[in-house]
Amino acid sequence: LQSKLPAVGSSIFSQMSQLAAEQQAINLSQGFPDFGCDPFLLQQLAAYSQQGLNQYAPMAGVLVLRQQIAALIARCYRQQLCPEQQITVTSGATEALFCAIQALVRPGDEVIVFDPAYDSYAPAVQLAGGSTVHLALKAPDFQVDWQQVADSITDKTRLIIVNSPHNPSSQVFTADDWQQLQHLVCQHGLYCLSDEVYEHMVFDRRPQLSALCFPDLAARSLVVSSFGKTFHVTGWKLGYCVAPAPLMAEFRKVHQYVTFSSFTPAQYAVATMLQQHPEQVSGLAAFYQHKRDYFASQLSHSRLQLLPAQGTYFQLADYSAISDLSDVEFCRRLTIDHKIAAIPLSVFYQAPPDQRLIRFCFAKDESTLRQAAEVLCQL
Amino acid sequence: LQSKLPAVGSSIFSQMSQLAAEQQAINLSQGFPDFGCDPFLLQQLAAYSQQGLNQYAPMAGVLVLRQQIAALIARCYRQQLCPEQQITVTSGATEALFCAIQALVRPGDEVIVFDPAYDSYAPAVQLAGGSTVHLALKAPDFQVDWQQVADSITDKTRLIIVNSPHNPSSQVFTADDWQQLQHLVCQHGLYCLSDEVYEHMVFDRRPQLSALCFPDLAARSLVVSSFGKTFHVTGWKLGYCVAPAPLMAEFRKVHQYVTFSSFTPAQYAVATMLQQHPEQVSGLAAFYQHKRDYFASQLSHSRLQLLPAQGTYFQLADYSAISDLSDVEFCRRLTIDHKIAAIPLSVFYQAPPDQRLIRFCFAKDESTLRQAAEVLCQL
Ligand SMILES: CSCCC(=O)C(=O)O
Ligand SMILES: CSCCC(=O)C(=O)O
Repeated sequence: LQSKLPAVGSSIFSQMSQLAAEQQAINLSQGFPDFGCDPFLLQQLAAYSQQGLNQYAPMAGVLVLRQQIAALIARCYRQQLCPEQQITVTSGATEALFCAIQALVRPGDEVIVFDPAYDSYAPAVQLAGGSTVHLALKAPDFQVDWQQVADSITDKTRLIIVNSPHNPSSQVFTADDWQQLQHLVCQHGLYCLSDEVYEHMVFDRRPQLSALCFPDLAARSLVVSSFGKTFHVTGWKLGYCVAPAPLMAEFRKVHQYVTFSSFTPAQYAVATMLQQHPEQVSGLAAFYQHKRDYFASQLSHSRLQLLPAQGTYFQLADYSAISDLSDVEFCRRLTIDHKIAAIPLSVFYQAPPDQRLIRFCFAKDESTLRQAAEVLCQL
Repeated sequence: LQSKLPAVGSSIFSQMSQLAAEQQAINLSQGFPDFGCDPFLLQQLAAYSQQGLNQYAPMAGVLVLRQQIAALIARCYRQQLCPEQQITVTSGATEALFCAIQALVRPGDEVIVFDPAYDSYAPAVQLAGGSTVHLALKAPDFQVDWQQVADSITDKTRLIIVNSPHNPSSQVFTADDWQQLQHLVCQHGLYCLSDEVYEHMVFDRRPQLSALCFPDLAARSLVVSSFGKTFHVTGWKLGYCVAPAPLMAEFRKVHQYVTFSSFTPAQYAVATMLQQHPEQVSGLAAFYQHKRDYFASQLSHSRLQLLPAQGTYFQLADYSAISDLSDVEFCRRLTIDHKIAAIPLSVFYQAPPDQRLIRFCFAKDESTLRQAAEVLCQL
């Protein structure tokens, strides 16, 4: 059997979470909270399912949820969207990314991605018959060199995939980044896939921006977000995609045959949550900024060097003062010998640079972060 | 924007359910129950989510659910499967079908499907760069002509997609059908995608068979099923795929980047349901056979001619004694003028034959079926 994805193995997130479980290690690898979500959300889930809302949702998502998403976007970015034609609910942001890529990328097309890049982009492009062009961003600030991007555009370039706030670097695009992106996308007639799943986690009073804030860019963009991340329920696999109507029509043609629809009672529960508890979203940045700062303060006496984290719930750390093992090997040993699981940065690169960086997820209770930091300070 | 799926519109199920809602018609079109599921299942959902099981499930599905699926397969088909390597939980059977096709079909490959065919097969094949070869089955018995299948196999044939019990014809493969399929698949080194989402709805004491019952076929098959259908919760979007380990490895490479995982609390709830209420599965055939017979008895004085229904929760009816409108137009008028929504059969064909057939879903309360039948008897 010839593999369609010969280079793909089990994802680093599955691998590290499994190793963490086997080793009973503190799991700061795969990105998910170790604390509970708002009990109100769970009450709503139980209530809607007990009301009997357990059959197929509409293919584009239940309308009340799409309306609440439009209201959220209006609050955050002052953009008016049409819930009927411009918003589709998906089975997690992963499904949205996959469908967007399938809808846009044709055999032979090139897709520009920035390394370190989330692991699902390249295989999705490959299954669509396209190829990825990887532009490496450099630690510690992982700035995009827009001139390099311009130089990488060819006749075959179809799509640029961006991700701000960025996993794993925790960097956030400035207005200037978005404008430069907009310029290139419009000038060359490209499309943009904007992975904004950490959109509500932008720290230090930086502006929260989206591709949606830049109308000419938005006109050629599919924007993806995730309720799993926003409401601390990554296992609910509920996300969405936003796009202009003609792009959304193409997106839905794919989504219709990929999953058709998503878990119905959760859609109603999240809609009610968005409507009745908007402070859960607007307070998320402060909530995670506090965790970032707490974790950093606990690590102040460690030999890890923390990189600036502008957003997301991830923190990069340079361990070169501790070890010169490769990051993959360092993470293995850290999990097995010290019972702390983290993610090696090299797995996010096509051509990993020579660096000693690992990623911690700080979406954890303070007690978890403190416990982990105690161990890390002894390395 | 050039469409990747130019021929695809909104699915017939979305269209008819929407029209039914607008017209306040009795919806016997899209396949879903109008009655509630077992309250125990909803209690379990609430309990597991309130226990805090709301983060990412393992990519292949929670292990207890995979173990219960293996036990179910052992009970139904006396086959032993490895939950770790041969079973993957998916976000509905639709996702499983899509991933199976993406894992197997390469650009240029041909895939044999039988018309009338479920609407997701062909677009999924097309996105993978393959093409579908449609073999039309003929009413009223929709028998596969295996000689015709053999004659349709070319050097490019990669996969045969089968669906028994069959939506929309309600026919069920005999052991002889399975053996002929096995023979062709093995002889030509093909693969089989077996859509068995109605597996537990086989009537009149016909044997419940699966591709899994035929070892040489099973060795080259991906088998797909659905808890939405089995437990009356189509909106839960929980299905699974079963395959030999090497095929499953390829399936998971795709699934990992299509949705990664599915709604966690529902996986635990269904696992508990399977373990504590196996009679819900083993009693399903009798439950739906009773509905089929009730609906037929209520229609005995109508001018609709019902076709034999051996399985599934669908009933075909010939309306040629009532009208010679096309089936699409007949269904529209039936919904608008008589407030009964059904599905026209022609939409399941690449080249619709000249026939007057529509599909009713009888997964409904007796009161719904009676009300619908009263109207239908007056046509
Ligand atoms: C789907 S598992 C990956 C979770 C995640 O986004 C991450 O850890 O980066
Ligand atoms: C995913 S909507 C289609 C439901 C169904 O299987 C049918 O009505 O045939």
